[in-house]
Amino acid sequence: MMELAEMIKLARGEEEVDLLLKNGRVINVFSGDVHEADIAIADSKIVGFGNYTAKQVIDLDGSYIAPGFIDGHVHIESSMVTVPQFARAVVPRGTTTVIIDPHEIANVLGLDGIRYMLESSKYNPLSVYVMLPSCVPPTHMETAGSELLWYDLTVFANNPWILGLGEMMNYPGVLARDPIVLDKLRAFSGQTIDGHAPGLAGRDLSAYIAVGIRSDHECTRLAEAREKLRQGMWIMIREGSTAHNLAELLPLVTPQNSRHCLFVTDDRHPADLLDEGHINFLIKKAVSLGLPPITAIQMATINTAQYFGLKGTGAIVPGFQADLVIFDDFERFNIQQVYRDGQLVAEHGKLLYVPPEKREVPIRGSVNINWEGIDLRIPAESTRAKVIGLIPNQLVTNCLIEKVRVQDGFAVADTTHDILKIAVVERHLGSGNIGKGFIKGFGLQRGAIASSVAHDCHNIIVVGTNDQDMMTAIREIGIMRGGLVVVDGGQIIGRLPLPIAGLMSDRPIEQVRGTMSQLLEVANHIGCVVEDPFMALSFMALPVIPELKLTDKGLVNTTQFAIVPLFEP
Amino acid sequence: MMELAEMIKLARGEEEVDLLLKNGRVINVFSGDVHEADIAIADSKIVGFGNYTAKQVIDLDGSYIAPGFIDGHVHIESSMVTVPQFARAVVPRGTTTVIIDPHEIANVLGLDGIRYMLESSKYNPLSVYVMLPSCVPPTHMETAGSELLWYDLTVFANNPWILGLGEMMNYPGVLARDPIVLDKLRAFSGQTIDGHAPGLAGRDLSAYIAVGIRSDHECTRLAEAREKLRQGMWIMIREGSTAHNLAELLPLVTPQNSRHCLFVTDDRHPADLLDEGHINFLIKKAVSLGLPPITAIQMATINTAQYFGLKGTGAIVPGFQADLVIFDDFERFNIQQVYRDGQLVAEHGKLLYVPPEKREVPIRGSVNINWEGIDLRIPAESTRAKVIGLIPNQLVTNCLIEKVRVQDGFAVADTTHDILKIAVVERHLGSGNIGKGFIKGFGLQRGAIASSVAHDCHNIIVVGTNDQDMMTAIREIGIMRGGLVVVDGGQIIGRLPLPIAGLMSDRPIEQVRGTMSQLLEVANHIGCVVEDPFMALSFMALPVIPELKLTDKGLVNTTQFAIVPLFEP
Repeated sequence: MMELAEMIKLARGEEEVDLLLKNGRVINVFSGDVHEADIAIADSKIVGFGNYTAKQVIDLDGSYIAPGFIDGHVHIESSMVTVPQFARAVVPRGTTTVIIDPHEIANVLGLDGIRYMLESSKYNPLSVYVMLPSCVPPTHMETAGSELLWYDLTVFANNPWILGLGEMMNYPGVLARDPIVLDKLRAFSGQTIDGHAPGLAGRDLSAYIAVGIRSDHECTRLAEAREKLRQGMWIMIREGSTAHNLAELLPLVTPQNSRHCLFVTDDRHPADLLDEGHINFLIKKAVSLGLPPITAIQMATINTAQYFGLKGTGAIVPGFQADLVIFDDFERFNIQQVYRDGQLVAEHGKLLYVPPEKREVPIRGSVNINWEGIDLRIPAESTRAKVIGLIPNQLVTNCLIEKVRVQDGFAVADTTHDILKIAVVERHLGSGNIGKGFIKGFGLQRGAIASSVAHDCHNIIVVGTNDQDMMTAIREIGIMRGGLVVVDGGQIIGRLPLPIAGLMSDRPIEQVRGTMSQLLEVANHIGCVVEDPFMALSFMALPVIPELKLTDKGLVNTTQFAIVPLFEP
Repeated sequence: MMELAEMIKLARGEEEVDLLLKNGRVINVFSGDVHEADIAIADSKIVGFGNYTAKQVIDLDGSYIAPGFIDGHVHIESSMVTVPQFARAVVPRGTTTVIIDPHEIANVLGLDGIRYMLESSKYNPLSVYVMLPSCVPPTHMETAGSELLWYDLTVFANNPWILGLGEMMNYPGVLARDPIVLDKLRAFSGQTIDGHAPGLAGRDLSAYIAVGIRSDHECTRLAEAREKLRQGMWIMIREGSTAHNLAELLPLVTPQNSRHCLFVTDDRHPADLLDEGHINFLIKKAVSLGLPPITAIQMATINTAQYFGLKGTGAIVPGFQADLVIFDDFERFNIQQVYRDGQLVAEHGKLLYVPPEKREVPIRGSVNINWEGIDLRIPAESTRAKVIGLIPNQLVTNCLIEKVRVQDGFAVADTTHDILKIAVVERHLGSGNIGKGFIKGFGLQRGAIASSVAHDCHNIIVVGTNDQDMMTAIREIGIMRGGLVVVDGGQIIGRLPLPIAGLMSDRPIEQVRGTMSQLLEVANHIGCVVEDPFMALSFMALPVIPELKLTDKGLVNTTQFAIVPLFEP
C-alpha cells in the first residue's frame, strides 16, 4: 500500500510515476462520458489524469480504456476448475474482480471449503470477494457435508475479502420466520445480503426485502424484474451457461434506474468461458441488443462496486485500483490489454501473469461412501411409479406416473420406454443413504452416467440402464475422489476426475473443456439424447426447483416440499 | 426497532399495519419511474407495497409521494437558530435528513460544540448526521476556541450519527503533505471524507482526490464541476444564501452521471428558509430549469444516501425508514404532508410534531474577552494604508492602497471617502489579540456594526466610524454573550443576541428572522449601503478567500497566505 504522502507526491507530478497510458479514450463511469485522457499509474493505483513523467509510457492510439470488469455473482465451482484456472480464463477477457458465493464447496466441505476458496484466490491477477453461503445445507430433505449456522459464518468477520451473506435461497424459510434463517439475517444486519427468490412477488417479496435482502439474480421475466426493482432490489442480470436472462431483462434498464442493474454469470462452464467469454460477452451482447455502451460498462463495473460497497474499484479515477481493460471498439470488442493493480497481466487474450510461486493449497478428499450399504435394487411395491420427467434445457421437471418394468420382484430400467433408473448416493457422512427412482428423457440404451456434481449437496447422482454399470460408475467416482464418468458394459469409456471437493479439476481449464467434450460424445454413444447429460443430471437432485426430484433421502415432490413414496398404489 | 420476525409478519399482511397510504403516485428512485402504489407502514418502517389491512388508511388521491429530502451538506449554525428551530423550518418543507458539519461551533467550543449539536439533534423529527470538522482551527493566521487533531475526532468513533470527516478546506495542507492534515485523512481512511476545493484542477486535484476525498460542494463553474466529476468526485450542487450554483451547474447533470450529483445548501439564512424553502426549493428550481423531476428527486434523496452509505433511507422501499413527502405536482410543489419514521410530522406547512419533553441542552457561554487589553486606536505609521475593498455580494475582496486620515497621530475613519475602521477582537482565549485595519464599501456615516459571527473562528468583528461606538458594540456583544449589534451615537439601536456559541439564537426562527430584518433596517439608518452588512462582515475575517482579510492576528494577504503590515511605506 502506498503511503498518503507518497501518493500526493506522485499525483502532483513531483516524482516519476510507473506508467502513463497515453491517448486512450477513457470510458468514465463517474461522469458517464467518454473523453481522451492520459492515465498515470503508480504502484497499484491510478494517481491522476494529465501530463506526467513516467518510467514507462504506452500509447493507446485511441483505444478505449474501461475499468476492469466485475462479475457480481458467480460460483467458480461450476466452472469445474480451480480459482487460478478460472482467473487464467477470465482475466484476459477483462474481468479483474469477481464476487463469489462458494456455496457448492461449502455444502461439501463446510468452513474448510470456504477457507480453500479464499486461500486459492490469493496470488492470482483477480480480486475474489466472497459472499458467505447462507444455505448449507439447502434443505432438510437432503444430506450435505456440513451445516453452517450463523455463528459458524461469523468466524470470517473482519476478513476484508468477505462482503456479506450470499444468496438467501431459503425464501420459504424467511417467510416462515425459520429461526435458523433469521439468526443469519441478524448476524449480517447492515451488511450486504444477496437474494435468490425466483418468482417471489407482492407482499411476500416485500417481506423478503424488508429484512434487508437487497439483490436478486433469479429474475427470468421482465415484469418480475420490474417489481423487484421497484421494491428496492438491485437487479443482477444473469447470462450464465444454464440461465440466459439478458435478452429478456434488458428492456428493464433505463437511464433513471441503470445504476441499480448489474451483470452476473452465476454459473459458467469451461467451454462457454473459453468460446464466448465472461463479462465481456455480456457487455458485447447487451450493446448489440441496444444498450448504450457507457451504461453497459457501468453495469459491469461501478454499479457492482457500489452495490457491494467496494470503494476503490470499478472506475478510472485517482486513488482507485489500476484495474483496466483496453479494447478496440464495442462491435468487435477485442480486448487488447488488461491491467490489474497497475500490472499488465494479459495481452491479446494471452495471460502474462506469472504467480510468485507454485502454491498448492491443501484440501482433503471429499468422497466418503458407505460402500457396504450400497444396494441399487428397488423392490417393486407396485407396477406404477412416479417418474421424473426431464424437460430439455430446463431445470424444472414433470412428475409423471408410469408403468415400470418388474423383474424378479424388482423394478428395473426399461429402455424401450426410456424409463431409466436413477440413484443418489450420499457421499459426505458415509451414512449409506441412497435415494432411488426412475427418470424419463435421457434416452440411454446401454451403460450408465454418474457425477459427483449434483446441486446443491453434491452427492453422487447416477442414471443408468442396469445396476452393474451404475455401480461401476459410482465406484469410479470413488476412485477418482469425485468426478464425471460414463460406463458402458462394465467399461469406463469416459471420465473427468474432480478431486477438489468432487466439484473441481486440478487440471488446466482447456484440458477440462476437452475432456468434457469427449464425455458428451461417449454419452451419445450409449444413446444419450440430452445435449449435456451432466448438466441435466446435476439439477435432478435439487429439491428447490419443481416438480419431482431425487435426493439421498428419496423422491421429493417440491410442491409439497416433502419426501414422497416412489410407487403409486 | 422492529424485530425481524415482526417485520416479516407485517410485510406479509399477517398482522394489521399501522398506516396505509392509498392511491399515491410513488416517485420510485430505485426503478426511476412513477407508479401508483399503496404504501404500508408499521412502526417507523415502510413494510410493503400492496393491499394491507391498516389501523389508519389515508387516501392520497393521486398526490405524489417522494422519499423525505436530504440535505447533503449544511452548517446549521449559519441559520442562527438551534437544531430544533432549524427542524421546525425545514421539516414542513420536506427535509427529513440533513448531514451537518458543525464546523462553526467546533471552532468556538471544540468537542463540546460538536457534542452540543449531536445532543440537541435528538428528539426532533429530523435525522441529523454529522461529518466531523476537519479544520479546527482553519488556519494558523487566526485564533480559534479549540484545536482538534485526529485523535480528538476519534472520540466519536462508533457513534452511528457520525459519517466521516467533514469538508477538507485545507487543500493547500493536503497538497503540502501537512502531517496534521495527513493524520486526519489516515484516521478516516475508508470512511466518507468531504471535500472543499474551490478552483482546484489538474494534477493537484488528482492528488486531493487520490487520498480519498470524494465530494466537492465548492464548484462555481461548469467546467470545474465537470473535471471534478470526471476525476471521481460526487458533485454537491449548492444553492445557499450566499452561494448560488444551481443554474450554472445544472447542465452538468446527464442521465449517465446524475447518480453522482446531489443537492446541498451549505448555509441558509432564516429568511431564505422561511420564504424560499430548503431542499424543496432546489428541487422546484431545478425542475423549472429543465431537470427531469425523477432525477431531481433522486438528487435530493437516494444519491445523497448512497454517497454517505446511509442504507435505510432515501427511497420508498420495504425495510426503509418511512420518511415521506406528499405533494401536489412539480410546478406548484405544495408540500401537503411530511412523514418521518412513519409519523405524520407536518401538514400544509404546519409542524405537528411535539417533542417528548422540554429538553434544554446545557452549553457554556463562549465570549471570553480580555477587556483590559482592548485598544482600538491605530498609531499612524504613514498616511498610506492597505484597505479592504468590499465587493458587493461577493466573498472576495480587493486589496486597495488608500490615503488614510490621521488625527493626533492616530489613523482614523474617514466617512467622506468611505474608509471605515474595522477590528477583530479575539473572544475565545482572552488573549487580548486585536486585528485592526480599514475597509471601504460599507458606507456608514455614523455609529458601528459588530458581530460575533465571523467565519471561521468567529471572533468579534466590528466596523465603525469612531472608536467609542465600536467599543460600545463590542461591549454589547459581551453582554449578550454573542450576537449582532448596531450602535449609533453611543446607543444600541439594534441587537440580536446569539448566546449559543455566539452563533445561534435561543429563540424561534420567525423571531430571529424578524430581528434580522430590523437590524438591516437600522444599519441603513446609519448609512450602510451593503444589502446584508452582517453577512458581508462575517466573511471579512475569513483568510482562505482572497484577497485582503483581517483576523485577530492582523491583516492577511491571502495570496501570500501571510500576515502583512497595515501601512505602506
